[in-house]
Amino acid sequence: MRIGIDLGGTNIAAGLVDEKLSIAARDSVRTPRGAENVVREMEALVRSLCEQAGINFQEIESVGIGSPGSIDTGAGTVIYSNNLGFDNVPLAGMLSGALGVPVRIGNDANVAALGEFHAGAGKAYESMVLVTLGTGVGGGIILGGKIYDGFNGMGGEVGHMTVVKDGAPCTCGRKGCWEAYASATGLIRLTKAAMESNPNSLMVSIADEKGKVSGRTAFLAARQGDSAAEAVVSEYCSFLACGAANLINLFQPAVLCFGGGVSHEGQYLIDRVLPLLESELYPVGEKKTVLRLAELGNDAGIIGAAML
Amino acid sequence: MRIGIDLGGTNIAAGLVDEKLSIAARDSVRTPRGAENVVREMEALVRSLCEQAGINFQEIESVGIGSPGSIDTGAGTVIYSNNLGFDNVPLAGMLSGALGVPVRIGNDANVAALGEFHAGAGKAYESMVLVTLGTGVGGGIILGGKIYDGFNGMGGEVGHMTVVKDGAPCTCGRKGCWEAYASATGLIRLTKAAMESNPNSLMVSIADEKGKVSGRTAFLAARQGDSAAEAVVSEYCSFLACGAANLINLFQPAVLCFGGGVSHEGQYLIDRVLPLLESELYPVGEKKTVLRLAELGNDAGIIGAAML
Repeated sequence: MRIGIDLGGTNIAAGLVDEKLSIAARDSVRTPRGAENVVREMEALVRSLCEQAGINFQEIESVGIGSPGSIDTGAGTVIYSNNLGFDNVPLAGMLSGALGVPVRIGNDANVAALGEFHAGAGKAYESMVLVTLGTGVGGGIILGGKIYDGFNGMGGEVGHMTVVKDGAPCTCGRKGCWEAYASATGLIRLTKAAMESNPNSLMVSIADEKGKVSGRTAFLAARQGDSAAEAVVSEYCSFLACGAANLINLFQPAVLCFGGGVSHEGQYLIDRVLPLLESELYPVGEKKTVLRLAELGNDAGIIGAAML
Repeated sequence: MRIGIDLGGTNIAAGLVDEKLSIAARDSVRTPRGAENVVREMEALVRSLCEQAGINFQEIESVGIGSPGSIDTGAGTVIYSNNLGFDNVPLAGMLSGALGVPVRIGNDANVAALGEFHAGAGKAYESMVLVTLGTGVGGGIILGGKIYDGFNGMGGEVGHMTVVKDGAPCTCGRKGCWEAYASATGLIRLTKAAMESNPNSLMVSIADEKGKVSGRTAFLAARQGDSAAEAVVSEYCSFLACGAANLINLFQPAVLCFGGGVSHEGQYLIDRVLPLLESELYPVGEKKTVLRLAELGNDAGIIGAAML
């Protein structure tokens, strides 16, 4: 049995993962501040999972952590994470010292891709690019069954490719990154702009009712035929297709999956993006990348971490 | 000994490649029309190389072909090549049948990257992205010492990522591809536009003298301090940096090489692109992708083909 830990800025979620890559027991806590406190909570989670599942602590083969930020996977260090306030924290070594069990660590987006590939939407395919459409655009690239992250462990930043040169500013410092348009944040920006110029749009009443504009606002209104919302969804999907086509022309993965908040629009999203994508792709013959939705949600991070 | 054949739309160049990846003998002919004629010329080239080098035909272990167009490497087929007028031509099998020697085939840009990686600018590195700046923007991705071309052999189309959504039309049918801006063709377009609005620019007299506008025109004038040419080089290099940053954020290769006609601008090009690139990159710590010039020129295609 292995344990996977998904370390987030808000919560730490952990799961005991069995040979079939199912989560046999799970638990979570709020993320405390400070590396020592994080390690203490992780240790408590591991012990609680063993207790829950009625297994002996010695039966744990290894523990894996998916962490935000830049990770030195070889050294087991969080080089830098803004979310956690970590700067060069040897997290794997600290937890391994506390537990007496091997601990590995990887970037959370890469780790989630690994889980999704082996236990979710990527299961039947030989390679995969996962694109998570959340606050940002993250993702992971799985080639030969393993995370591909370049010679320095920093590759696979699918959100940080410029698709609009000198375009909207991105959190990374560049301009016109795919993330600035294809993230939920980008979608909300488009939605708000459309609401301002279309005060009678259904989007306005939906946002009023829910108390805020979200990544769902335009999709909800578009599904009900609102034309301003339709234009927002259309533009958003054309950005999604643009970046996805870039990734396919470069990687030609067997499957490209959309995960994260926006992917909860489900088949509707795929049906909107697919024709745009096909019109953009370099002609490749019969073996074409399949477009799918991620299946595991947050469990991908736990399962992937356990597989490190 | 192995033989590498670089099949182009204009010439077929072949070389006998030794264990040290040097070309021990070489020959070339004009490319005839029609697959049978191409195979006949290739066969003659192979026999001529053996004769030249004074070796027995039986000493040839294998022959490799780098071909333009989309290639089914497994089947040894040119699926489609506009340049050659080939449509589903089983080129490897045809040449193998004629020679009685195993023949492998790959896409010319990928094959050149393989040669450059093992015998040229990539020799000291663990992974490489080669970007050839010619009529188009081609390239190849070498991971783990091998060509990475996706699950269908069509990956690595580095020129066909959109960097300007809804931008300049590309030969592939998309808009705003990197190729439309970073190719010599894109550079010539920028140069011509600048010449029109700056009729007194040094670019105009250089083009008059040479009888045409080329990818060198703006660079020549910029090196002599012409301000309109300087603006062209500046804009061109900012496009180069933009796409290169995209590739680095995705692949984090140990080395990224520029090859092709524009790369003959040499260290001047690197010195112009590097600061722009560094300002665009996602922060990665100490292990950074090195930017280099390709070293082997057209030999990369011959050496890479021999290594297939």
